[in-house]
Amino acid sequence: MTASNPTRVALIQMSCSPDTQTNLDKAVSRVREAALAGAKLICLPELFRAQYFCQREDHALFATAESIPGPSTAALSEVVREHNLVVIASLFERRAPGLYHNTAAILDYASEKPDNIASIYRKMHIPDDPLYYEKFYFTPGDLGFHAQKTSAGPIGTLVCWDQWYPEGARITALKGAETLFFPTAIGWHPSEKAEFGERQYDAWQTIQRAHAIANGVFVCAINRVGHEWGDVTHNGAEMPGPGEHTPENGIQFWGGSFIADPFGRVIAKASHDEEEILYADLDSAEVETTRQHWPFLRDRRIDAYGGITSRFLD
Amino acid sequence: MTASNPTRVALIQMSCSPDTQTNLDKAVSRVREAALAGAKLICLPELFRAQYFCQREDHALFATAESIPGPSTAALSEVVREHNLVVIASLFERRAPGLYHNTAAILDYASEKPDNIASIYRKMHIPDDPLYYEKFYFTPGDLGFHAQKTSAGPIGTLVCWDQWYPEGARITALKGAETLFFPTAIGWHPSEKAEFGERQYDAWQTIQRAHAIANGVFVCAINRVGHEWGDVTHNGAEMPGPGEHTPENGIQFWGGSFIADPFGRVIAKASHDEEEILYADLDSAEVETTRQHWPFLRDRRIDAYGGITSRFLD
Repeated sequence: MTASNPTRVALIQMSCSPDTQTNLDKAVSRVREAALAGAKLICLPELFRAQYFCQREDHALFATAESIPGPSTAALSEVVREHNLVVIASLFERRAPGLYHNTAAILDYASEKPDNIASIYRKMHIPDDPLYYEKFYFTPGDLGFHAQKTSAGPIGTLVCWDQWYPEGARITALKGAETLFFPTAIGWHPSEKAEFGERQYDAWQTIQRAHAIANGVFVCAINRVGHEWGDVTHNGAEMPGPGEHTPENGIQFWGGSFIADPFGRVIAKASHDEEEILYADLDSAEVETTRQHWPFLRDRRIDAYGGITSRFLD
Repeated sequence: MTASNPTRVALIQMSCSPDTQTNLDKAVSRVREAALAGAKLICLPELFRAQYFCQREDHALFATAESIPGPSTAALSEVVREHNLVVIASLFERRAPGLYHNTAAILDYASEKPDNIASIYRKMHIPDDPLYYEKFYFTPGDLGFHAQKTSAGPIGTLVCWDQWYPEGARITALKGAETLFFPTAIGWHPSEKAEFGERQYDAWQTIQRAHAIANGVFVCAINRVGHEWGDVTHNGAEMPGPGEHTPENGIQFWGGSFIADPFGRVIAKASHDEEEILYADLDSAEVETTRQHWPFLRDRRIDAYGGITSRFLD
C-alpha cells in the first residue's frame, strides 16, 4: 500500500512577524528550501500567516481570515507543483460571513482540485485559556477526523489542542493515516516559565509520543518560536496586540518541534528558540514492523469502548 | 467528594519465587510493612502469587488458579482489616471449570462483602507474544472498565497490557477514578535488552504518563523485578518452566514501578532490579486543580468519537 522507500519530511519551525504577507513569503521560501533538500512532505506551524492574535478578542481580526482555496493556498500551490510536494498549511478559514474555522489544508501536487487542495481538516477541539481565546474566533470543526492518501503516503493532520486527545489520534490512525501532523502554536506565559516551563513542554511532548505508541504511527509536531505580543498588520491595516511589549507580557512560543517514530522515540527535535527546518526520513515499513511487534491494534476491545462517546459516566 | 488530605500510596515492587505460598506470605508481609509506614492504598504487582508462568502453555498450570474470594483474598483481608487499608491484588481467577481470568480485586476494609472485596476487574486486553502466552490462560474480561469508590478515594485498576490502550484509561477516569493502578508483569527478553531495553521501558512509561495527562489523574504502575524462568511450585506440586536456566532464557522483569501526577510528571520511581516499596502522598485536590488549568475534559468532541468502537475505518 505504501512504498518502503523513506519519505523525507520537513517541519518548518518559524517565527512570525506582525505582517501577514511577510509570513506567507517566508513560508513559501522555507518550503522551497526544504524541497531543494529533498523533502516531499512539508508541514507549516499553526496559523503561520500571523502572530498569534488569539491573545485577545478583537472583532477587527476576523478581517485576516481567508477562504480556502484562497490567497495562501494559491501561493503555496505554486511551489507544491514546482517541486512535486505535499504541504500542510494551517489557516484562519473564512467559510461564510460570520463563520470561521482553524483549518489545515493538505496540498498535494497530484491533486487536481483547486490549488491542489487534496482535503481540509477543521480543528475539532478548540481551547480557551488566558491568552488563548480561540473559542471567540473558531467554530469547532464539523468534518470529523480524517486521513488522506497523498503522493507521499497516507497522512492525517490534527491541530494543536487536538494533541491532548487520544481519540483524535486513534480515529485518524484507524482511517489509515501512518503519519500524524500537529501544526501547533503553544508557548510559555513568561511569568510561569521558570517554575512550570519544563514540565509543560514535557507533557506536550509526552502525550504526542503516546499517540505514536498507541497507534504505531509516526508523529510530527510543528511549533513556532519567538516572543509575540500578537500584533498583526494585514493588507496595510495595523491591529496592535492587547498588551505592552514587556518581557512579562505576551507568549514565548517554545518551539521544540519534533518527530517521533511508531514506538514513540524522538528521532528529531528542534531547538526552543531558533527558526529551523527539521528533517527526517520516514520509512513506512516501520509502521507495520512496529505494529507486528507491539500488536495493540489486534487486541482492542471495541465491544467495550462505547463509554468514550459520553461526557462523563457518573 | 474526596478529601484534600493526602493519601499515602504504596506500590509493592517484589520478586517472585517458584513457591506460591512464599509469594503470598511475602505480599502480606510487605503490605503490613507499608501500612506501618502510613500507606492506606497499596497495590501488588500482576499475578504476584507465582513466577510469570505464561512463558509457556501448560495445562497443569490451571491448577494454580483460585476463586475470588479465595485463599489469597482471605489472607490479604486480614491485614486489610487490621490496618484499615485498601489493597489491590492481581490474581489468577478460576471463575468456573475451564474458565479463567486475569483479575484484580480491590479489597477495602470498609467493604462488608466477603473478604472485604469491594469489586473486581477482569483484564480486558489480553496479550499474546513470545513468552507472554496469556491468551492461552485468560479469557478476556467481561465486566468492562470500572471505577471504585473506596475509603481511600475513587480509584480504578487496569492490568498490564491494558496500559497500551488510551480507551481503558479514559473510560475508567470518566467513571470517576482519580487514581489509576496498573499491576504489571513486563520485562526484557535478555537477548533484546542491550539494543531495545531502554526504549521499551521508555515507551511503557510514556504511554502511562500520557493517561495521567489526558485524564488529569494520578497513575501508579507496579511491576515485579527479577530474572524468571517461570518455575512454579503450588501446594507441593512442581511445574518447572519451559527453558534452561541460562542468562539468555526467561524474562528479566524490569521493575521501574512509578507514580505520575495528574500532569504526567513522575513523582516517584523504583529501581530496575531491586525489591522495594514505592511511596507517594497523593492529594486529590491536585486532580481538580490540574483539570482546571488543562481543561481537556471540557472540550472533548463526544459527537465525533463514534469511530473508536470500530476495528478499523477503511
